[in-house]
Amino acid sequence: MNLYRDTQVLITGGLGFIGSNLARRMVELGARVTLVDSLIPMYGGNLRNIVDIEDRVRVNVCDVRDPFAIEYLVRGQDFLFNLAGQTSHIDSMNNPQTDLDINASAQLSILEACRRVNSKLKVVFASTRQLYGKPDYLPVDEAHPIRPVDVNGINKLAGEWYHLLYNNVHGIRACALRLTNTYGPGMRVKDARQTFLGIWVRRLIEGKPIQIFGDGMQLRDFNYVDDCVEALLLAGANDATNGKVYNLGSEEVVNLRQLAEMLVPLQPGGTFELVPFPPERKAIDIGDYYSDFSLFRRETGWVPKIGLAEGLKRTLDFYRTEYAHYWDEHA
Amino acid sequence: MNLYRDTQVLITGGLGFIGSNLARRMVELGARVTLVDSLIPMYGGNLRNIVDIEDRVRVNVCDVRDPFAIEYLVRGQDFLFNLAGQTSHIDSMNNPQTDLDINASAQLSILEACRRVNSKLKVVFASTRQLYGKPDYLPVDEAHPIRPVDVNGINKLAGEWYHLLYNNVHGIRACALRLTNTYGPGMRVKDARQTFLGIWVRRLIEGKPIQIFGDGMQLRDFNYVDDCVEALLLAGANDATNGKVYNLGSEEVVNLRQLAEMLVPLQPGGTFELVPFPPERKAIDIGDYYSDFSLFRRETGWVPKIGLAEGLKRTLDFYRTEYAHYWDEHA
Repeated sequence: MNLYRDTQVLITGGLGFIGSNLARRMVELGARVTLVDSLIPMYGGNLRNIVDIEDRVRVNVCDVRDPFAIEYLVRGQDFLFNLAGQTSHIDSMNNPQTDLDINASAQLSILEACRRVNSKLKVVFASTRQLYGKPDYLPVDEAHPIRPVDVNGINKLAGEWYHLLYNNVHGIRACALRLTNTYGPGMRVKDARQTFLGIWVRRLIEGKPIQIFGDGMQLRDFNYVDDCVEALLLAGANDATNGKVYNLGSEEVVNLRQLAEMLVPLQPGGTFELVPFPPERKAIDIGDYYSDFSLFRRETGWVPKIGLAEGLKRTLDFYRTEYAHYWDEHA
Repeated sequence: MNLYRDTQVLITGGLGFIGSNLARRMVELGARVTLVDSLIPMYGGNLRNIVDIEDRVRVNVCDVRDPFAIEYLVRGQDFLFNLAGQTSHIDSMNNPQTDLDINASAQLSILEACRRVNSKLKVVFASTRQLYGKPDYLPVDEAHPIRPVDVNGINKLAGEWYHLLYNNVHGIRACALRLTNTYGPGMRVKDARQTFLGIWVRRLIEGKPIQIFGDGMQLRDFNYVDDCVEALLLAGANDATNGKVYNLGSEEVVNLRQLAEMLVPLQPGGTFELVPFPPERKAIDIGDYYSDFSLFRRETGWVPKIGLAEGLKRTLDFYRTEYAHYWDEHA
């Protein structure tokens, strides 16, 4: 990973959950890091996420929908980790045009900016397993049909494909990682906009029962954020990834009830309850999901290293001391 | 098809090639037809296309990117044939944001308008075979992987999926037809923006050689516009199509050289020539393509009826007398 030493690294969504963890690692590796974030309160950006590295990164607050700012910021960069996105499936159904503007339109304009002023950089795009929709088979590999079940899935897919297209046609090296559930310190826990695990952690620490929708039998896989960051680093460092799409994932597959049973003992007095699926969530639920990530493992050597028990413990430990910065009215 | 008698039918792209032919048929069937068209000169709308029915349709000139106009226009409609689109692959690469605005963003806003003010109508969306990209196998059926090779393909796909999503989640009945090369009277012949056959017809009538890019061995299938219109009528009339996507196509598959050899004798002095592929077209070329349309045939009984020889003859006959309205500076 010495490859990143003294390179210029731009991270969109850089004050968000994954972006800030990536920034921390990049700073350790000696990269010169610029973080772009809109700091829109409903999204994942939070200055607290970089409190320990704030004097070693450059922060530029702007929206990826601002094409002029972006064109200025991509100049001279060696790497672009393109992580900014609208992540809420429910919000995408209620306000589909905003989701389109951020997850599709802004992506195209970021790539156009690269084409105009810096076609030499390498781009790593954070995509999502959401675009597979309800799986036909498990584990889901990259050959699985694409069948998004919500507006967010459609727009993220368009955003992903613009990246591959600009790689193939315009020679801007780009690849995409389809992330599964990523969790850990820095995730949005105020509500369920980024991940349901966020609101679970909040409720647990607040002494309220975790709420599981339905029977809790839905299978999921999870990546601790450090493993996700490692995957991003490998994807950026390896030109064999250019023009390709890879699943991330984990061999540790659990259902939501099992996940709750792992979390609850980590907090004194923790409980969970089963509640009926809210209809607007049921309509876009994907059932069981877990990934086959063997392609990415084969091509880059990546394997997730932090098990779920350890990752959940670290996460709870973090929010027990940090909660004031994440769900206070000022957070 | 008496189903359409006295119904309210809205056609976006209604002054364009397929839209105007559909309008003519709808008028014959006794529907009350409203045509929406932007009349943007680079696109397919042309008032000449409805010269014979202009007093039997209502024309509303506006852009599908105008959400307020669209919300007004969808009220009270029984059917929406959603045909407006940016069709040029090359333009989509040069001006990707415009393609996105029309082919993705406006589609979402049309569907949102339906959701707000008229969720009872049936929507038929004109999609494209372009989103399959370079085929893995032939003929291409609907299970073929999706792999768009240009911005237009990505945005049309997003537009298509919004329709299916609004069917599945919001109960707005919608289906999509993935059109292959459609040709006939009313197509844009000024240039190659809508179909390469357009510029071929123009050059032939102007006494210039038809230009084939490359060796002319690429296979294609073609639908005469009347057959395409029939498919749209069947798709709209049949609720078994709701939430589904269908290929159109033809069993008459020819390569581009054979097509030129069929066209040339239809015009005294007609010739063709092979010219090198322009690089910007080569980069997004899909190679051989033809469709398996058996799913749509099975579910609706549709079969194309106008053979290529007859269709090309009708097309040439039309433009020989009508050319002044299609490629004059005033057209």
